[in-house]
Amino acid sequence: MLYRDAGVDISAMDKVKRRIAGIARSTYGPQVLSEVGLFGSLCRVPKMHDPVLVASCDGVGTKLVVARLCGRYDTVGIDIVNHSINDILTLGARPLFFLDYIAHSRLAPEALLAIVKGLGKACRDSNCSLVGGETAMMPDIYRPHDFDLAGFIVGIVERKKIIDASRIVAGDILIGIPSVGLHTNGYSLARRVLFDKARLKVGSRIKGLARTLGEELLQPHRSYLKPVLPLLGRIHALAHITGGGFYDNIARLLPHEVSVVIHKKSWRPLPIFRLIQRLGDVPDEEMYRTFNMGMGMVLMVAPAQKDRVLGSIPGSRVIGKAVRGTFGVSVI
Amino acid sequence: MLYRDAGVDISAMDKVKRRIAGIARSTYGPQVLSEVGLFGSLCRVPKMHDPVLVASCDGVGTKLVVARLCGRYDTVGIDIVNHSINDILTLGARPLFFLDYIAHSRLAPEALLAIVKGLGKACRDSNCSLVGGETAMMPDIYRPHDFDLAGFIVGIVERKKIIDASRIVAGDILIGIPSVGLHTNGYSLARRVLFDKARLKVGSRIKGLARTLGEELLQPHRSYLKPVLPLLGRIHALAHITGGGFYDNIARLLPHEVSVVIHKKSWRPLPIFRLIQRLGDVPDEEMYRTFNMGMGMVLMVAPAQKDRVLGSIPGSRVIGKAVRGTFGVSVI
Repeated sequence: MLYRDAGVDISAMDKVKRRIAGIARSTYGPQVLSEVGLFGSLCRVPKMHDPVLVASCDGVGTKLVVARLCGRYDTVGIDIVNHSINDILTLGARPLFFLDYIAHSRLAPEALLAIVKGLGKACRDSNCSLVGGETAMMPDIYRPHDFDLAGFIVGIVERKKIIDASRIVAGDILIGIPSVGLHTNGYSLARRVLFDKARLKVGSRIKGLARTLGEELLQPHRSYLKPVLPLLGRIHALAHITGGGFYDNIARLLPHEVSVVIHKKSWRPLPIFRLIQRLGDVPDEEMYRTFNMGMGMVLMVAPAQKDRVLGSIPGSRVIGKAVRGTFGVSVI
Repeated sequence: MLYRDAGVDISAMDKVKRRIAGIARSTYGPQVLSEVGLFGSLCRVPKMHDPVLVASCDGVGTKLVVARLCGRYDTVGIDIVNHSINDILTLGARPLFFLDYIAHSRLAPEALLAIVKGLGKACRDSNCSLVGGETAMMPDIYRPHDFDLAGFIVGIVERKKIIDASRIVAGDILIGIPSVGLHTNGYSLARRVLFDKARLKVGSRIKGLARTLGEELLQPHRSYLKPVLPLLGRIHALAHITGGGFYDNIARLLPHEVSVVIHKKSWRPLPIFRLIQRLGDVPDEEMYRTFNMGMGMVLMVAPAQKDRVLGSIPGSRVIGKAVRGTFGVSVI
């Protein structure tokens, strides 16, 4: 008996891995020391007074199911990189490097490469080096067309520039920056409503949507790095609106006796969210607890900074206010 | 329709996550700045002249299937942490922090906690901080009892102390350090042979094995950090014997015109490997290409360092030699 009789063909995997290595190399910044193929990836720490690493790990979630239904694998890599970049950006960090974990059963080499091309593109766009990763073929865990994609990011920030949400005070203004769709959360509910309950298909064309339903759902997670990075010194807190929506992601930042009120009338949710709410008869609160509703990042700033921030980020707008109180987050 | 109708109960997950957070906190070293629950984890960079980060990502692989068959979840966390620690150790790095990715369908909270307890134990044992992770419940991707576990590690090494395998020269001695079993690779072949072909069960008791077959297969991956760390300055190269066995893991380190000869008679493979080979009629070369055969880490040292290294690592022994040549790795 040979290893490949057990369903794992090391040499076929090796071919794909060589092409993956080429994509990874295209993302390397000057701080990366390693050649691909060692047991670990080497990255110098940039010169700083008191450098602090900021790390985060996340998966794409069941947006992967939509990718599979569409047979389209070039967007989910962008999703996980940009999701991760936004997460560490909330602490004031810029990205250093990223590693991916892809697990599957028998994804075609072209699909694997499309995933990695997405990772590489998003990394290059944000000066983040894709320094490593693992591609695991496990037919005993994953069904033939299923796969999973997770990512791990490390960024860096000067210690005294860490965004510390304790700066939030009553009176702060909440500014939302638009999303381009669901980004990377809420897909379990969205799929139940759209595909199971309303019996739509990924190829369905729906009035009000510029693309097929599948393409609309696969719009890649937007990175907020470029618009937000120059403003970090002016911001009291950032909330990345992911799983848990406006409630959980803002509530966990709030200091004692500060709460926020978000005015849902201050922006019109993207058509895809209105469609999900209508077809699923989903209560308003559940929508704002599950989805970003068209605002993927929320900044909290002192009133004196409001115009400067609004003026430098296209599409941004005031969506609420911090107030005295212990109610947490109220969406009215 | 509510989010929990889609099969994802956020509040049930939150309860488990709070207990996970407690385990994570127990691993924190003084360099960790963050409280659990932010969008990222904060870790100060230790003071060094030219610090280099060493990162690695890997999964447990189908050892997870054995854990599921045994209904035992407290070892796989140890596996992925120690596997990762060994990987970055080969470059001379000591661990700073670790993040985990657990994906599942409906693992019991007790199983999830057992996994995380294993992660926490292994992290504490190696002064590695478990600073974050993601637990994703995805019934649409994972079958009811399946799950996946991957990990990401970041370690640190002073730039001039990076173990650079180009130090290897003909004449170097190969020293093996014992493993405690398969560690974290070769499980696809092992399961095919033991469970499918030979029809054994995880509860089977086999002559020559001190434990049931399942317990033998679940022996946790050994960390080589403590024995190897004090010797790093004396070592030309380290190979962690994982997927690809003695061939791939040593070959990728070798400089031009240096090859190695490994004498398989120099140690007796652990009983579990002899059992797999016998029941599966697996050729010798395939065994040494797939498994660690009882030697989980191979050090390459100058002859003058041999006795010092052998004397300070219990169980270590000479298993081969580096020679002039371009044949790569030969196991004879």
